[in-house]
Amino acid sequence: MHRQRLTKPDGRPLLLYARNAPPDGRCAPSPPGAPPHPNAHLRWHPLRGEWVAYAGHRQNRTFLPPPEYNPLAASCDPANPTEVPDGRWDVAVFENMFPTLTAAAHDPPALSVPTAEGRGVCEVVVFTQDAKASLAMLPLWHVELLIDVWADRYDELGRRDEIAYVFPFENRGKDAGVTLHHPHGQLYAYPFVPPLPARELALQAAHLQEHGRGLLEEMVAAEVAGGARLIYGGAHVAAFLPVCARYAFEVWIAPHRPAPSFLALDPSERRDFAAALKTVLMKLDAVWGEPMPYVLVFHQAPTDGRPHPEAHLHAEIYPSWRMRGRLKYLAGSELGAGVFTADTLPEERARELQAVTVDIHV
Amino acid sequence: MHRQRLTKPDGRPLLLYARNAPPDGRCAPSPPGAPPHPNAHLRWHPLRGEWVAYAGHRQNRTFLPPPEYNPLAASCDPANPTEVPDGRWDVAVFENMFPTLTAAAHDPPALSVPTAEGRGVCEVVVFTQDAKASLAMLPLWHVELLIDVWADRYDELGRRDEIAYVFPFENRGKDAGVTLHHPHGQLYAYPFVPPLPARELALQAAHLQEHGRGLLEEMVAAEVAGGARLIYGGAHVAAFLPVCARYAFEVWIAPHRPAPSFLALDPSERRDFAAALKTVLMKLDAVWGEPMPYVLVFHQAPTDGRPHPEAHLHAEIYPSWRMRGRLKYLAGSELGAGVFTADTLPEERARELQAVTVDIHV
Repeated sequence: MHRQRLTKPDGRPLLLYARNAPPDGRCAPSPPGAPPHPNAHLRWHPLRGEWVAYAGHRQNRTFLPPPEYNPLAASCDPANPTEVPDGRWDVAVFENMFPTLTAAAHDPPALSVPTAEGRGVCEVVVFTQDAKASLAMLPLWHVELLIDVWADRYDELGRRDEIAYVFPFENRGKDAGVTLHHPHGQLYAYPFVPPLPARELALQAAHLQEHGRGLLEEMVAAEVAGGARLIYGGAHVAAFLPVCARYAFEVWIAPHRPAPSFLALDPSERRDFAAALKTVLMKLDAVWGEPMPYVLVFHQAPTDGRPHPEAHLHAEIYPSWRMRGRLKYLAGSELGAGVFTADTLPEERARELQAVTVDIHV
Repeated sequence: MHRQRLTKPDGRPLLLYARNAPPDGRCAPSPPGAPPHPNAHLRWHPLRGEWVAYAGHRQNRTFLPPPEYNPLAASCDPANPTEVPDGRWDVAVFENMFPTLTAAAHDPPALSVPTAEGRGVCEVVVFTQDAKASLAMLPLWHVELLIDVWADRYDELGRRDEIAYVFPFENRGKDAGVTLHHPHGQLYAYPFVPPLPARELALQAAHLQEHGRGLLEEMVAAEVAGGARLIYGGAHVAAFLPVCARYAFEVWIAPHRPAPSFLALDPSERRDFAAALKTVLMKLDAVWGEPMPYVLVFHQAPTDGRPHPEAHLHAEIYPSWRMRGRLKYLAGSELGAGVFTADTLPEERARELQAVTVDIHV
C-alpha cells in the first residue's frame, strides 16, 4: 500500500492510497461552502447515561446533489472544485467538511447537564474513483486495500491522545440515509468509547474472565461448526447471520481468532476478511436482484490506552429492508424500549443467502 | 369511564371504553386471516445483553390496506368483519392478531444462545371511531379518556405474574413505520423490564440514592424554572425539549412529582397530562403545517413486583423528521456506536415550537 498526504487550502488533511505505485494526486481541492469555524459539543443524557453530539452547521450539508455535481468526483478543475483530485489513486480519505466531531471543538455551552467539547475526527473514505461502483462491486484487491486503509486509520487516529475509539462505517443507499451516491464510507474517531461497543466489550470481558475464552470466538466457532446460518467460511474468517439477528438479513463477519482490530490482521487474514465482506455484500445485492440498502459498522478494540484482551474485531451489517423494498422501521419497541422485534428467523434468511451464488473473482 | 369486555370468536379479548355511558358494542368481530396458533420466542443476544423477539407470522400482517378495507373501522357487517364493532364507544382495545409477544407462546427452539417463550401481551388501542382523526385532533376529554385507558391497561396487565413492564406507544405516520392510518396506538406488555427503561431506572435509582431527589424531577424543575425549552407549563405537568434531545423536535412530558404511572395520577393531574400531550402534538403538526410523523412512548414503573421509588412516568416523543419531509435516518453512529448526532440545538427547535399558537379547547 502506498500513501500520499496532502493538505487542503482550508487546512483539512487529504490522504490518497494506491495499491501498486505511489499515488499522484495533482491538487488538494476543497469545494466552497465549508463552515468557517466548525464547532461541536457534547451534552450528557442523564437518563440514558450517554453523550449526544451537536453540530449545528451540519444541517446545511450536501443532500443528494445532482450527478453533474459530485463532491467526491476526482477533479483538479479550479472552476469546479470537489473534495478529491485528479491523479492515480484507489482510495481517498479526507476530513468531513461538516464534522460531527472536530479537533477544533471549543467552548461548549454551560447547561443543566454536563457538556464537553465535541473533540474527535470525522473522515470520509472515498472507496473508488468510479461513481457508479459499490463496495460489493470493487475487485477483491480493492477491498483488500480498503482493509489496509481502515487499518492505517485505526493506527494513525488511535495513536492520538484524545481518541478513544476508531469507528469505520458505511451507510449504503437512500434507505440507509445516504446523501451522496458515490461509493464512500465514513470514519468517526470518538473521544470516548461509545455506549454500544462499551456494552459489548463489558459483556465480552465478563465472558472471558469466566470462561477463559472469548464470547465472539465461541459464537464464530459454533456458527462454523453448525453451518445453518453460515454465509462464508474461510480459513481465517467467517460470515454468518447471528443466531440473535435483530434485522432480517443481519450478517456479522469476524476472524476466528480474537484479533482486536484490522491492524492486528496479517495479510492472509486481511485477504480472507475482504473475501468474506465481498461475498456477503454481493449476496445481499443478489438476493432480491436490487442493491440492498444497509448500515455496515466495524467494532474494534478501543484506543483508550487500556488493554482490551476481550476485544474481537467484527463487522455488523444491518440491511434496511425486512422485505424487498420495505423498510424495517425502528419504532416504539425498538426506539423506546430497546426490544427488537423480528418477523423472520435468521435460519430462514440464511438459507436464502446461502442459495445465492456469487463469484467474487470476476 | 365505562368499560365493556367482550371476547372475539378466536378467543381474543375486546375492551370498549366510553366516557359518559356504558359502551354498547353490538358484536365482537374478528377478520379472517388470524394465524391459527400464534407463537413467539425470545433469543438472548449475548453481545448486547438483551432479548430479541421473533414472531414469524408477523411478516404477513396487514400493510397499508386500501381505505375501503380498514380493519379498525367500526363494523358488525358479517360480510366484512373488522376488529371493532358498531356501537357507542370512544376507545377500543384488543389483542393484536399478529402479536410479537403472546400468552400462548410455547416451545422455544433450543439454540446456541439462551431462548425463552415470547410470553406477553400485544394490544392495539383504537383511539377513536373516526378514521380521519389523529391523537392531536381528539377533543381534550377524549385524550383524558385515553389516559384513563392507559391507566386501566397498566393496572390490569401489570397485575399478571408474567408481566414485568407495560409499555404504551404510538407510531404515527408512514415515516414512523405505520401500516394502518386509522388513529391507534399499541401496548406491549413484556415479561422482562426492557433494556432502555431498565437503563433509565438504574440511573434514576443511583441519582435518588445519592441526592435524595429524583433525576427527572430535577430536570422538570430546571426546565420549568429556565423556560428556554419549555413547551407546556401546567400546574402539575410540564412538556419540554430535553436539554439532551437526540431528535430535532424530541419532546418529553412529565408530571412535576415523580408519579410512577398513569394509574398513580389523580384526576387533575390526568387532565393536565392530557392538555400537555394535546398541546405538544398540535404544535408538532403545526410547525410545518403538515402532520408530523413520530414515535411516542411512555415510560412507567415496572410491574415486576419490586418497589420502584426511582420511577417517574414520562412521555418521550421522537419526531421522525430533522427537516420538513426529511427523515432523520439512524445510521452508523446511532445504530452501530449508540452515539446520536444532532444537527440542530434543542433551544432553537424549542423557540419554533413556542412560537406556534394552538388552541387545545376547540
